[in-house]
Amino acid sequence: MSPFTGSASTTEAWRHLRLTRDGGVATVTLARPGRLNALTFGAYADLRDLLPELARDGSVRALVLGGEGRGFCSGGDVEEIIGATLAMDTGRLLDFNRMTGQAVRALRECPFPVVAALHGIAAGAGAVLALAADFRVADPTARFAFLFTRVGLSGGDMGAAYLLPRVVGLGHATRLLMLGDTVRAAEAERIGLISQLVPEGEAHTAAAALARRLAEGPALAHAQTKALLAAELDMPFSAAVELDAATQALLMNSADYAEFHAAFTSGRPPKWRGR
Amino acid sequence: MSPFTGSASTTEAWRHLRLTRDGGVATVTLARPGRLNALTFGAYADLRDLLPELARDGSVRALVLGGEGRGFCSGGDVEEIIGATLAMDTGRLLDFNRMTGQAVRALRECPFPVVAALHGIAAGAGAVLALAADFRVADPTARFAFLFTRVGLSGGDMGAAYLLPRVVGLGHATRLLMLGDTVRAAEAERIGLISQLVPEGEAHTAAAALARRLAEGPALAHAQTKALLAAELDMPFSAAVELDAATQALLMNSADYAEFHAAFTSGRPPKWRGR
Amino acid sequence: MSPFTGSASTTEAWRHLRLTRDGGVATVTLARPGRLNALTFGAYADLRDLLPELARDGSVRALVLGGEGRGFCSGGDVEEIIGATLAMDTGRLLDFNRMTGQAVRALRECPFPVVAALHGIAAGAGAVLALAADFRVADPTARFAFLFTRVGLSGGDMGAAYLLPRVVGLGHATRLLMLGDTVRAAEAERIGLISQLVPEGEAHTAAAALARRLAEGPALAHAQTKALLAAELDMPFSAAVELDAATQALLMNSADYAEFHAAFTSGRPPKWRGR
Repeated sequence: MSPFTGSASTTEAWRHLRLTRDGGVATVTLARPGRLNALTFGAYADLRDLLPELARDGSVRALVLGGEGRGFCSGGDVEEIIGATLAMDTGRLLDFNRMTGQAVRALRECPFPVVAALHGIAAGAGAVLALAADFRVADPTARFAFLFTRVGLSGGDMGAAYLLPRVVGLGHATRLLMLGDTVRAAEAERIGLISQLVPEGEAHTAAAALARRLAEGPALAHAQTKALLAAELDMPFSAAVELDAATQALLMNSADYAEFHAAFTSGRPPKWRGR
Repeated sequence: MSPFTGSASTTEAWRHLRLTRDGGVATVTLARPGRLNALTFGAYADLRDLLPELARDGSVRALVLGGEGRGFCSGGDVEEIIGATLAMDTGRLLDFNRMTGQAVRALRECPFPVVAALHGIAAGAGAVLALAADFRVADPTARFAFLFTRVGLSGGDMGAAYLLPRVVGLGHATRLLMLGDTVRAAEAERIGLISQLVPEGEAHTAAAALARRLAEGPALAHAQTKALLAAELDMPFSAAVELDAATQALLMNSADYAEFHAAFTSGRPPKWRGR
Repeated sequence: MSPFTGSASTTEAWRHLRLTRDGGVATVTLARPGRLNALTFGAYADLRDLLPELARDGSVRALVLGGEGRGFCSGGDVEEIIGATLAMDTGRLLDFNRMTGQAVRALRECPFPVVAALHGIAAGAGAVLALAADFRVADPTARFAFLFTRVGLSGGDMGAAYLLPRVVGLGHATRLLMLGDTVRAAEAERIGLISQLVPEGEAHTAAAALARRLAEGPALAHAQTKALLAAELDMPFSAAVELDAATQALLMNSADYAEFHAAFTSGRPPKWRGR
């Protein structure tokens, strides 16, 4: 637990998603398989709140995000959410849309890598959750559909109009967000939307293996790499070079950097401690 | 016509390009086939002025930009333009180069998607017009040449040094703008410069079909998707997420969003009204 | 020599790398083949200082950066550098990391294109030097490994977390910087990390040929193209369009632009003078 923990209490049970832990790896599973893991108001809120709690906890070094059943996530639940939003006033609509954006920010800003395990559909908000992960490990059944315009909304939802052009380029991103067409695994890999393509049925196993590898590695170095990748998208080159210099000077005082040198000079593998 | 129209009159005839309209689809054709649609001073000015007029008109929901004859556009007319610019003073040179940039800004900022129909050459300013479109529908004869350095000018012309790295990545963009080499359709598709590759001779038909599909869809959602993709290239992630939230809250009050829900619950396709 | 040269003297000998010149082409060779061209403190300092001197000199129009022996560059020398940094205080650590960043800034900011000639390994700082070049000419033995996390440091080093997402997209960049895995030539070409793939053993010849072509071309146009590509990564679109307009207005007064027109109208190839 972080020493900088004050009065805030810890959530006893995450009711809208499943959380399991194994060593430094946390696994979050969207678990409404009967509805293709469609997101409810509660699920968005849990995603928003869970990641800051895990960050505060301090023992999580990698997170797997997956879905139970036939696919990853079919997006916001049409029946629960669209009907309800039609009855909301302006302030409440803004609250809802900020919450979904905060869930995505939580994925981008947590101090450990997030590995999405993708099979079947990742649609709407589900596609953006996958996009916000650091790694997308997918099998050939995986497919993406940013189908916001199909319900009359903007393709720029939950940061998608920011993230997608930076992952696949502006041309592909315009096509995907404007049309909402389905992108199958082969195309997704070709345009850079998939980090690792694995055989059918192996997305969860491979994502867990990657998360374990990350969790056993130099966690502070991974956390800083993630933070710098995010920060430097929004920074001029000269400032980025300065941030890199300050960060490396900091990490050259870390236990793991000294450990690497000790291990290297004695010809053994390093024992990473993540600090 | 937009209610926010004041005293400005409507242009009676666009003399330097051909404009046709069919429902919500406007088609702009560069029509100097004897000179491979080389751009004149008048053509640049018409491109700059036409798009704001179409936006004010309010009935255009998608635009096709194509070229008549053997290719899309061979760029600025060497004989008319280069000779004339050699005799211009500094202020006039700046006027000319701002005009060409404004033509590109008009394509990027108009509130409807632009579909470039590409066959044969898109060279110089023609390559940048294609690059500024939201979609590039091309057949296998299409080729691009950003040949500004070939005439002694900067590869960064009309926003190309901004747009091209965001479409194909900095490595390819540097090569294309620095050398001015011709990029054929196969490579253009591979690096993300083509949105849709179609059989030879079908670029115009396919572009028109895509424009029709867009025009018959939720036009306000498309317009906001385009605006957010453009804005969020220039915005930090946290601001982009906030812009997305405000935009969706706004569109959740739109007629099209309510129509989607009504159609979905009664099992019929939605009738989009574009507002 | 630039007329804006003051009291600063010219370095008599570059002791930590090899510099040769042939017409407008300078060739910088990392030449510690027994250590796979591992970078020393002196080599970083020479890279930082050499490029501003060459820029001041004014006769260099393209630069080739290559490595002698079995590969391009294995990165910072583990024995010399890691051991030494473990004994440095905070100020000195910052000095060192700023120096490495300045070497990369020098490559990005020098007013002539840099062509990296790549064979064998480009690892750690070597991978970032390659990434900072304008062109990466590689043969099939070339491979990249951004292995900073493997020594417990941040993958964002020397501007890599800024540059790599802009070259290969955020998804691939996250994978490469976070894991430090080796990327072989075929994948590097597929994701846009290689500008030109040539047959085995021909990277240096092809890089030299490209540099010669650039040096014989319109050098001022190339310099401005490079400067605008760099600047416009950090600029809103509307400002980029204005910068392009001002730059072209400037270059339309250049000797090379007039020469192009004269050559074109008399049907002969232009004789570029680079101003």
